[in-house]
Amino acid sequence: MEMSELYSHLGDDLGYVEQRLQERLHSPDRRLEGAATHLLTAGGKRLRPVFVLLAGQFGDYDRGRLGDVAVALELIHMATLVHDDVIDHADTRRGQPTVKAQFGNQMAMVAGDYIFAQALETLARLPDTRAHRILSRAIWRMVEGEIEQIRDLFRLDQTLLAYLRRIRRKTALLIEMSCTLGAMATGADTSVVRALRRYGYGTGMAFQVIDDILDFTATEERLGKPVGNDLRQGNLTAPVLFAMRDPSVRKKLEVCLGYGSETFNMDGAIELVRSGDGVAQAQRLATSYLIKARASLAPLADGMAKDALLSLADFVGQREY
Amino acid sequence: MEMSELYSHLGDDLGYVEQRLQERLHSPDRRLEGAATHLLTAGGKRLRPVFVLLAGQFGDYDRGRLGDVAVALELIHMATLVHDDVIDHADTRRGQPTVKAQFGNQMAMVAGDYIFAQALETLARLPDTRAHRILSRAIWRMVEGEIEQIRDLFRLDQTLLAYLRRIRRKTALLIEMSCTLGAMATGADTSVVRALRRYGYGTGMAFQVIDDILDFTATEERLGKPVGNDLRQGNLTAPVLFAMRDPSVRKKLEVCLGYGSETFNMDGAIELVRSGDGVAQAQRLATSYLIKARASLAPLADGMAKDALLSLADFVGQREY
Repeated sequence: MEMSELYSHLGDDLGYVEQRLQERLHSPDRRLEGAATHLLTAGGKRLRPVFVLLAGQFGDYDRGRLGDVAVALELIHMATLVHDDVIDHADTRRGQPTVKAQFGNQMAMVAGDYIFAQALETLARLPDTRAHRILSRAIWRMVEGEIEQIRDLFRLDQTLLAYLRRIRRKTALLIEMSCTLGAMATGADTSVVRALRRYGYGTGMAFQVIDDILDFTATEERLGKPVGNDLRQGNLTAPVLFAMRDPSVRKKLEVCLGYGSETFNMDGAIELVRSGDGVAQAQRLATSYLIKARASLAPLADGMAKDALLSLADFVGQREY
Repeated sequence: MEMSELYSHLGDDLGYVEQRLQERLHSPDRRLEGAATHLLTAGGKRLRPVFVLLAGQFGDYDRGRLGDVAVALELIHMATLVHDDVIDHADTRRGQPTVKAQFGNQMAMVAGDYIFAQALETLARLPDTRAHRILSRAIWRMVEGEIEQIRDLFRLDQTLLAYLRRIRRKTALLIEMSCTLGAMATGADTSVVRALRRYGYGTGMAFQVIDDILDFTATEERLGKPVGNDLRQGNLTAPVLFAMRDPSVRKKLEVCLGYGSETFNMDGAIELVRSGDGVAQAQRLATSYLIKARASLAPLADGMAKDALLSLADFVGQREY
């Protein structure tokens, strides 16, 4: 199944979310609106809204309430991207200049804060305070993940566990929240919420591992940013950490990354990871997360919604961009 | 009445808030904790907690719940300061290096996000979703105020109204929220909440106008940052806008600020404002806000809490730092 089929399955509810997103970021200040909507118009998969809308099909489906959840979560995602690009000094994302590159660091910081504030206001409409508590806790864990990422830059001695913990916070948590809050917003049973939470966790972990693989294996055109960008920034991801389990590769990587010398050879480092076994091992890791994610759905009633979630897991596993 | 007398009036409840603030910013990541608590240990008047605790004395006083409100609002305040210092390239605050100066822009941005996330989690504990809605709306208006400030930098043609709108959002709103949410958290009557909201608005406006006056009239030692810092940054405040109503002063200011030439004379500009009538006019503006703030308290029952709020307004009017 292609992602576009999933979108058509959701009918105009995704269009409704898109419209709500646009309305939310409207501002009388033109420059702010420009910076805030810059990322929105650059496209993106709207993955979090898709998860929310699908997770909302196991209770009492309510487009308005699910729209609030979807808009809030997509905005939180966007706000973190805008701030991340400042932190990572990133100039392109989704094939477009980043907010930071186009509007400067100052404006990117404020625009991120603004998008985040809009997310909060959308979220505050939800009558269930449990949702507020769950999400606010998730948000600070996400920020902690960001800090862990900065702390672990260029640290060759980090464990795979540190990486998993980081991507859990950086990516999986918000996808997990999309499934959890989508189900909760429609009053689904606790067992359904739990199943969807686990599904979201597994799919989210796999999504990030594959993102980290694509950073090495895709083309710049597909990625919308330079190949090997993570490694260039010092962010050591699954393919690198697996590749380094081979002592000879590790030694060569250390040289390329300037350990014990003054010179870097980033292209060499990227080529080492691309040509080694790390990518295949990372792919197996992603697959194992997806198997668990699919299995989590067992307690849910069969039907189109469950099929769509299974297809979405497949899509995450096979995506090439 | 000195500020310290007010503090002693509140007994150990301010100490309780202080302890809760420290606990909130604890993190297993030492560097993050260092950056996040940097501002906390640098002191500060804890004005928002004082307003919360005093506003909470007209309903069913509950230290735990008021503590949540006070901690959340003080953290929001701190998060905006940390981000503001990045935006303003500020190196000192409260006589200490800013988070940005000590830890770098990247860390300051993340630390601000972290402090803000902690505020949200504290806030999410409040059982009243009205509070969430009111505050989330206030937060995005605060961010809009920040953007207006950036937009209006060095704009000599701005009106006093634009300035008032900006400081309303930048400062008064959060003080207004402190009073409103403090009263709401203790289940005070609607009329009491309204009276305290108006009081908070007026006191907050006066507080910022006086802050802007002190930027010209106080010493660097008192301010904990360079004199005339606002004007140096291009932030035109009440004393400047009033001073410019005199056409001859305006003309000289334009020259000092580099209009129609290539050279700046910031010290000259600051001296022009200090020696002109702008400061006295701004002082009258602050006084008029304080008179309204005090009058707003008329419907409240007489007693120690009301006296303390009146004294607090006096303190704001007379403060020299």
